[in-house]
Amino acid sequence: MNELTNKITKPTLVVDLAKVDRNIDRMVKKARANKVVLRPHFKTHQSSEIGRLFLEKDVEVITVSSVDMASYFADSGWKDITIAFPVNPRQIEQINELAGRMQLNIMFESIEAYKIVGKQLASGLAAWIKIDTGYHRTGLAWSDLKAVLGLTEKIVENGALSFEGILTHAGHTYNADSVDGIRKIYSETVDRMDYVKNELQRQGYGVKVSVGDTPGCSVVDKFGSVDEIRPGNFVFFDLMQENLGACHEDDIAVAVACPVVAKNRDRGEIVIYGGAVHFSKESLLGSKGTPYFGRIALPVNGGWSDSLRDCWLRSLTQEHGIIEASKELMEAVAIGDLVLVYPVHSCLTANLMGKYLTTGGQPINMARIN
Amino acid sequence: MNELTNKITKPTLVVDLAKVDRNIDRMVKKARANKVVLRPHFKTHQSSEIGRLFLEKDVEVITVSSVDMASYFADSGWKDITIAFPVNPRQIEQINELAGRMQLNIMFESIEAYKIVGKQLASGLAAWIKIDTGYHRTGLAWSDLKAVLGLTEKIVENGALSFEGILTHAGHTYNADSVDGIRKIYSETVDRMDYVKNELQRQGYGVKVSVGDTPGCSVVDKFGSVDEIRPGNFVFFDLMQENLGACHEDDIAVAVACPVVAKNRDRGEIVIYGGAVHFSKESLLGSKGTPYFGRIALPVNGGWSDSLRDCWLRSLTQEHGIIEASKELMEAVAIGDLVLVYPVHSCLTANLMGKYLTTGGQPINMARIN
Repeated sequence: MNELTNKITKPTLVVDLAKVDRNIDRMVKKARANKVVLRPHFKTHQSSEIGRLFLEKDVEVITVSSVDMASYFADSGWKDITIAFPVNPRQIEQINELAGRMQLNIMFESIEAYKIVGKQLASGLAAWIKIDTGYHRTGLAWSDLKAVLGLTEKIVENGALSFEGILTHAGHTYNADSVDGIRKIYSETVDRMDYVKNELQRQGYGVKVSVGDTPGCSVVDKFGSVDEIRPGNFVFFDLMQENLGACHEDDIAVAVACPVVAKNRDRGEIVIYGGAVHFSKESLLGSKGTPYFGRIALPVNGGWSDSLRDCWLRSLTQEHGIIEASKELMEAVAIGDLVLVYPVHSCLTANLMGKYLTTGGQPINMARIN
Repeated sequence: MNELTNKITKPTLVVDLAKVDRNIDRMVKKARANKVVLRPHFKTHQSSEIGRLFLEKDVEVITVSSVDMASYFADSGWKDITIAFPVNPRQIEQINELAGRMQLNIMFESIEAYKIVGKQLASGLAAWIKIDTGYHRTGLAWSDLKAVLGLTEKIVENGALSFEGILTHAGHTYNADSVDGIRKIYSETVDRMDYVKNELQRQGYGVKVSVGDTPGCSVVDKFGSVDEIRPGNFVFFDLMQENLGACHEDDIAVAVACPVVAKNRDRGEIVIYGGAVHFSKESLLGSKGTPYFGRIALPVNGGWSDSLRDCWLRSLTQEHGIIEASKELMEAVAIGDLVLVYPVHSCLTANLMGKYLTTGGQPINMARIN
């Protein structure tokens, strides 16, 4: 992207579509080999143009994390969308409007929530029950069969809704300390979902099982007895995933190009135009237990380099980023040059940046939800 | 804001303009009493409408943190803007364009940076030298008089530029452990700036001194020998400032209204629609050393309540927030109700939210820079 660097004047989220394509392709093929439906979570890229790359590989059903995001993708032509977020009683009108023009799938995480909105829902909506398989964020505990059965009954009784099945997000894979740890959580998740499914089937209900988190879906080869997976982050990956062992650095498909605006040789620091309003403040812990907000690369033809040894994005204020720089980097870059930063969490970075530039120099838009 | 709550369907940044007015008024009066120019930093609110409230109090000069933000406020009619960020060589064209239609003030933090862009700058630009008085982010060390004199000479020699003086940001007040600690840093900052100013004056240069950070400007009564202050966050304040002793909770002028979407009595947790894409991931440490991302209030007539005892926004994922809730809160709110969250860092929260709703129900726009 050497020619491209001349066009970049400020922090710019660069996307390498060849890597995106490879990341999508790998997950599509794995889903197909396992005969499970891939319903990718689009909260990572929030872009109808990136979404189209999935469509080209015959992925026609998607997941989002808000009603507004469902609305954006419905406007872009998607016809089957799951909102993997508890039903927000304040958005029933918008949910019903969407249900009138596409297949919208919603999610209940308690009978309490169902009771509040159950009667107000338009017909044609499909409903999932959120199961807590160990992440402890939302959902009915997998072991509480009584609660799951009670809610299933209510949904089935409701003439407006079709009951789809049970859905979980094993977000605790993000706390695993090894790839084996992630695999173990994936396997435990499937077992717990099977336990619930078996009981529901015993009671005569048709039940699909939907799981999905990028670490789990990336490190296992066999998805087991599930019907659907919903990973999202894998489209870009990031340092958090690399750190978990869910991807290699070379799979990371986005980096933020940032102008160097100051250098302090005494402190070994390079200051970039690129701060908390570009990256978010998500951090990882380095080998010495010191937090970092990104790793540093240099522009190369067609993209960016591997991350540089002994260089870390150490601190972020609103617009400033401070790089702990190796002597080599200090010599290699001048004020006005660009460095590229591998993000810690690509979902939050993309959300902040609001648009992309491909390594080929083409702008790509995304939704602006907030 | 009880009527207002019926209109809110999703995370909404609510602003109490009476508090904003009080916060602005206090700083304007203190600046006037001290005969210093108040050049508020507009990166906190990023809104021409909020900016107008300053104009109504005869504040006519402002600070911003990026060229794009300068452009936005220039388009809104502001005629004198300082970009308190190192000159980015990649934006000289935009800087020169702005300089042609208003008083634009830029900042050099090294002779290295000056040499790269000095010759390309349009006439009419005013230049400040950034001094590092102890924060160690950017700038020439206050003790390095030789470097400051060298850069001053270059700027003065440059026919296009007028030399304004020296500017610092004592951001290390954010690490102070007491109000006295903040006052001590403020006083040390002024002493160090005086040291540099005296030497420049001895060499025959006219020199103004500009300082500014919200903690320092909020807790001192006397601004000392400075000419200009540039605080920004004080317009809204936030929990970080309250934690530092720079404001009272009642001064915090923004809160994020968030729908309750789930409750887990066993864990004492309430789940809100409101996550990292609304608040950012800036956190503070609570009394037990546990991080939190916000404190919780309830809607009351005309605004929101004091923060609730034993309630903390404990965890954030992209759209979910998890509140550690007291028994009282657990009983008080139902799924679908709104809670209000005092933000840890209002600048980053406002930047993410992208717009405001007043407690009176009026929308207020802001710039969308990224």
